[in-house]
Amino acid sequence: MHGAVYGATGYTGSELIGLLVRHPGVELRFAVSSSGAGRSLADVVPGAPDVPLVAADAVLTDGLDVAFLCLPHGAAAETALRLLDAGVRVIDLSADFRLPDADLYAAWYNRAHPSPAHLAGAVYGLTEHARGALPRASLVANPGCYPTSVLLPLVPLVRAGAVATGAVIVADSKSGISGAGRVPLLHTSFVEVAGNFKAYSVGRSHRHLPEMEVQLARLVGRSIAPPPLIFTPHLLPVPRGILSTLYVPLAPGFDLAAVRTALTDAYAAEPFVTVLPPGEQVQLAHVVRTNRCAISLEVCQPPDSAAMLIVTSAIDNLVKGAAGQAVQNMNAVFGLPETTGLLG
Amino acid sequence: MHGAVYGATGYTGSELIGLLVRHPGVELRFAVSSSGAGRSLADVVPGAPDVPLVAADAVLTDGLDVAFLCLPHGAAAETALRLLDAGVRVIDLSADFRLPDADLYAAWYNRAHPSPAHLAGAVYGLTEHARGALPRASLVANPGCYPTSVLLPLVPLVRAGAVATGAVIVADSKSGISGAGRVPLLHTSFVEVAGNFKAYSVGRSHRHLPEMEVQLARLVGRSIAPPPLIFTPHLLPVPRGILSTLYVPLAPGFDLAAVRTALTDAYAAEPFVTVLPPGEQVQLAHVVRTNRCAISLEVCQPPDSAAMLIVTSAIDNLVKGAAGQAVQNMNAVFGLPETTGLLG
Amino acid sequence: MHGAVYGATGYTGSELIGLLVRHPGVELRFAVSSSGAGRSLADVVPGAPDVPLVAADAVLTDGLDVAFLCLPHGAAAETALRLLDAGVRVIDLSADFRLPDADLYAAWYNRAHPSPAHLAGAVYGLTEHARGALPRASLVANPGCYPTSVLLPLVPLVRAGAVATGAVIVADSKSGISGAGRVPLLHTSFVEVAGNFKAYSVGRSHRHLPEMEVQLARLVGRSIAPPPLIFTPHLLPVPRGILSTLYVPLAPGFDLAAVRTALTDAYAAEPFVTVLPPGEQVQLAHVVRTNRCAISLEVCQPPDSAAMLIVTSAIDNLVKGAAGQAVQNMNAVFGLPETTGLLG
Amino acid sequence: MHGAVYGATGYTGSELIGLLVRHPGVELRFAVSSSGAGRSLADVVPGAPDVPLVAADAVLTDGLDVAFLCLPHGAAAETALRLLDAGVRVIDLSADFRLPDADLYAAWYNRAHPSPAHLAGAVYGLTEHARGALPRASLVANPGCYPTSVLLPLVPLVRAGAVATGAVIVADSKSGISGAGRVPLLHTSFVEVAGNFKAYSVGRSHRHLPEMEVQLARLVGRSIAPPPLIFTPHLLPVPRGILSTLYVPLAPGFDLAAVRTALTDAYAAEPFVTVLPPGEQVQLAHVVRTNRCAISLEVCQPPDSAAMLIVTSAIDNLVKGAAGQAVQNMNAVFGLPETTGLLG
Repeated sequence: MHGAVYGATGYTGSELIGLLVRHPGVELRFAVSSSGAGRSLADVVPGAPDVPLVAADAVLTDGLDVAFLCLPHGAAAETALRLLDAGVRVIDLSADFRLPDADLYAAWYNRAHPSPAHLAGAVYGLTEHARGALPRASLVANPGCYPTSVLLPLVPLVRAGAVATGAVIVADSKSGISGAGRVPLLHTSFVEVAGNFKAYSVGRSHRHLPEMEVQLARLVGRSIAPPPLIFTPHLLPVPRGILSTLYVPLAPGFDLAAVRTALTDAYAAEPFVTVLPPGEQVQLAHVVRTNRCAISLEVCQPPDSAAMLIVTSAIDNLVKGAAGQAVQNMNAVFGLPETTGLLG
Repeated sequence: MHGAVYGATGYTGSELIGLLVRHPGVELRFAVSSSGAGRSLADVVPGAPDVPLVAADAVLTDGLDVAFLCLPHGAAAETALRLLDAGVRVIDLSADFRLPDADLYAAWYNRAHPSPAHLAGAVYGLTEHARGALPRASLVANPGCYPTSVLLPLVPLVRAGAVATGAVIVADSKSGISGAGRVPLLHTSFVEVAGNFKAYSVGRSHRHLPEMEVQLARLVGRSIAPPPLIFTPHLLPVPRGILSTLYVPLAPGFDLAAVRTALTDAYAAEPFVTVLPPGEQVQLAHVVRTNRCAISLEVCQPPDSAAMLIVTSAIDNLVKGAAGQAVQNMNAVFGLPETTGLLG
Repeated sequence: MHGAVYGATGYTGSELIGLLVRHPGVELRFAVSSSGAGRSLADVVPGAPDVPLVAADAVLTDGLDVAFLCLPHGAAAETALRLLDAGVRVIDLSADFRLPDADLYAAWYNRAHPSPAHLAGAVYGLTEHARGALPRASLVANPGCYPTSVLLPLVPLVRAGAVATGAVIVADSKSGISGAGRVPLLHTSFVEVAGNFKAYSVGRSHRHLPEMEVQLARLVGRSIAPPPLIFTPHLLPVPRGILSTLYVPLAPGFDLAAVRTALTDAYAAEPFVTVLPPGEQVQLAHVVRTNRCAISLEVCQPPDSAAMLIVTSAIDNLVKGAAGQAVQNMNAVFGLPETTGLLG
Repeated sequence: MHGAVYGATGYTGSELIGLLVRHPGVELRFAVSSSGAGRSLADVVPGAPDVPLVAADAVLTDGLDVAFLCLPHGAAAETALRLLDAGVRVIDLSADFRLPDADLYAAWYNRAHPSPAHLAGAVYGLTEHARGALPRASLVANPGCYPTSVLLPLVPLVRAGAVATGAVIVADSKSGISGAGRVPLLHTSFVEVAGNFKAYSVGRSHRHLPEMEVQLARLVGRSIAPPPLIFTPHLLPVPRGILSTLYVPLAPGFDLAAVRTALTDAYAAEPFVTVLPPGEQVQLAHVVRTNRCAISLEVCQPPDSAAMLIVTSAIDNLVKGAAGQAVQNMNAVFGLPETTGLLG
């Protein structure tokens, strides 16, 4: 199988190339970089594979089976259209096809969607919940990093009816700095980040919020009213990893055993989702540099209130939250074992 | 004024000694350390002042006005009794006098309280809310680090009636590693912590939870039913600092302006509490190595639900969360300006 | 091939097990841990493979082809003897067989060597320079982490006669904290290490000094007088990686081109040793989590003095400096391609 | 005394302002920032003092006693000329007046010096060695951070004749990231720096090399031929601090006791220079956030070679290496006790 990566020199692109060059079923045909064209990826990203970088306009689609887009939103959609027209399958790691509604996209991304016609056909690639649609899909919208960490635990819980009616779910998420991208910015420079910590886009203002709400609703189906979310991302002084702490008011009758069952039933056969034993808390060390999502569950009972489920969910934002899940999706699209080329 | 520190070589003790040797109104008479006796503090804690360390049994209370206890719980209470008997004022940085109820103490600390008779008279030294009781107090229970970060924003909010009836408040807190103490442990060693992140004592199991609930109830008074808390501490890979993210369902009629007013009214004249301007988020960099508490406020409105206030509150766990607040309390006890010897 | 690891739960042991479980030519039969027996490695080392840990006394040598020893010195030699007697090949990651002379061992390790008779037969496993002796070797002394970073560049330079007669070579080395082991110690705890940096065992007092000098002499042969070393290790606030900066006074006639040739000739065909292009400096990011050694070369000319070659050499202390080189040695011993199971 | 800071929002400028607002003898009249004009320093640099920033063209020199320049080289000299013309004393933290020779400046800074006439009169403010010239000096060239860490130990050693004739001194220096400035760059961004380490400007190519050599020669006087230096700076993954490891071949007759005497004699009365007791190694924790320079000494004897002195010297690059030494110089210029406003 022949693949290509557009946007090779960002953190997601170089991580993805690292996975693809070791993937036994893929031959990387080219890696596109507007800034690094003519150089080797290894020269631009220390420790990355020695892959030549080409300019976008030099690209041929001939013989290409799949292309991965690690481009800014907007640019990704435009490139996707060209590739789809040429019959190349596209796995888009940008946000361009994650919201199935062009109005919602316009409201959150401050621009008209460049190809609304493709929104309905894009498969939202939360792999464990996209099995039916992925094989032979033309266009996969790879989920955002925060949504991956939040939806993997929430989907089975909401489906099981574990969430109290009318409840709001709080998602307090903490992300490593690579999530902010590789372009140098003051607030991601070492001296500003080391020893520091802060929240940003608090409440309902981060672009991953509508993605989480709309995909949660879609994934659990019409019969269940999905709970609204409150989402507070924080900048964690680590290079990679996301840990989301979710506060889920439980429906009557649900206790720790019941919610464990809901999750372990959903993920018993999944190679990349692990529900930790009772009493063990996930940590980033469980998941960094793997395609794993690790989930812990605790329930507590405040006086005179509904029981509260506290979920902690950890992923590597660059792997399961981006490049790894993209490879997992590619495996699913092309009928390879999903674990091919991935560290579980 | 003559002072002494018991438990000099831990992070709190050495931080406190650093403050006291620069405090214009205090002469540090001795610093007690069971492990470092006979050496200089500077030799045990690199960068700390050059203060000789003495063994506990060599200590005289003659001429001592105030003693600070940076001892483990249990040991602190026993030392406090000896000092109080000798007429020395005690500022206890342990947990021994923070819970006003001996049964509650026994339930959470797995031991009978060594001196229940002193519990009622101890002043809970959340300085900004203890002004009436601190002058000439004999025994000050210096608040825990997490409770300081949580109670400073919550007390005015609950007093103002801003919290929805029946609501549960979620406190998602993140603490630097010095909060775990200076005794070497695997989970606080560099290789385990760097790049890592995790929650611990999730829900309602951390000893600071009853401290927060019982002191919140006491501080807001009997006429208001205090909300229960859910508290999740996390280990943050930074040496010092706590940032607590609080999720507070608002009572009808309360919006961002109203909660800002409640807090800015409460703290307008306070040198150490700052409510940041709208739209600005606190970060640890605002407060580390100062006695400051910085607070940010955001309100969001999930569909079909009560408005949610999201408070972020940052302190230095070793300063406002421990040694700095202890000095602030000493200043209040002895009638000095509260800012004496402290960085605001 | 059937293998076992003794001392599974330290940083070296768990890194090695991570490599072995993914190695296509090895079946890990058991992993010995005195402290973790009865548990899974994954429970002791977050992110490590799910391998059951057994107690040392439960161990059988039947059917074992190779054993890796990640034990303290002394204990390693004793275990090695038992295994060698049973016909098991041993790759010892301790220091017990690195010094070919029992008196030298006794002088530096403050104990009599437990099996001086085996010293002569042990192969010093600096793989690139041990090719002749490794195939079918019974006992491999895996090099120390610092010596690996220093000897790989020095051996070809000394062999080529590039070092000025009578010169002393300065090796200023900086190591990540995992080099100090996993046992919790104050000076490797997070709060002490973060933001800190220091030298230790300055000059000629670190145990890796005699290893470097004696193996350098042995590797370059009798006809060349090897230069003495001055070695200053430093504790670098990173989890893993060593960067050694070497100052090598050049013999007359040697310039940058000549020393480049000496090194590129030596390592042209080596998959794990890379000499960077002129003007590029190695960094830990080039090598962490790989079995690579990256080397940069600069020459400068102080007034009225010999030209000085400045070599910077980077490895991952846990991979090429320990577990990875051990696997590379195993591959060489058993005739597998040396890169099997390793990341280059 | 009335002071001003030009270039307020860089790391050096904001550190300096933090010192000046707490200095009892200075009133900060204004702080100039081209990028932050109209805002408060606290809004630009979290945790910095709440000082209004003004644009350069709004500046008056009336009533100003002293101005500190934290500007890029070139711009600093031009501003200095205007201030000197108005009778304002200038402490320049740039490199513009550190090299006493306009040709040397032109060679290393790739531009003609804007005011060669002032070079001879500028006082090189390595305070401990500039006491004679500082009182009432008009223009102080504040030393570079690396040169401060290297010259403080070297000057007394060279003066004492401790350095072997014809020897080259190696200075292997490691600097925290704030030394690279506050402008966001890829190689100082968090993800690139965390866990990483590298050398740069190896050998004799860093601009601080000529500063060290020329000032060393000037400070030790004509009768002693100063040794040439080899200087390798490294980027250390900490926010602040420099540790320089110096390798000094000793003249015959010099041993550890003799070199200790040379240094302790030189610095016995100095409040900011500490020679650590034998066997103790300096670490950054000894000096960060202080104006201190801490020095350790070890001597080793390689076989058949001169004895080698290994000096480790630690400073905070932003304090003793920049802003703190600038305040110390100001104190000396105006006849205040040198420790005023500084942490020793």
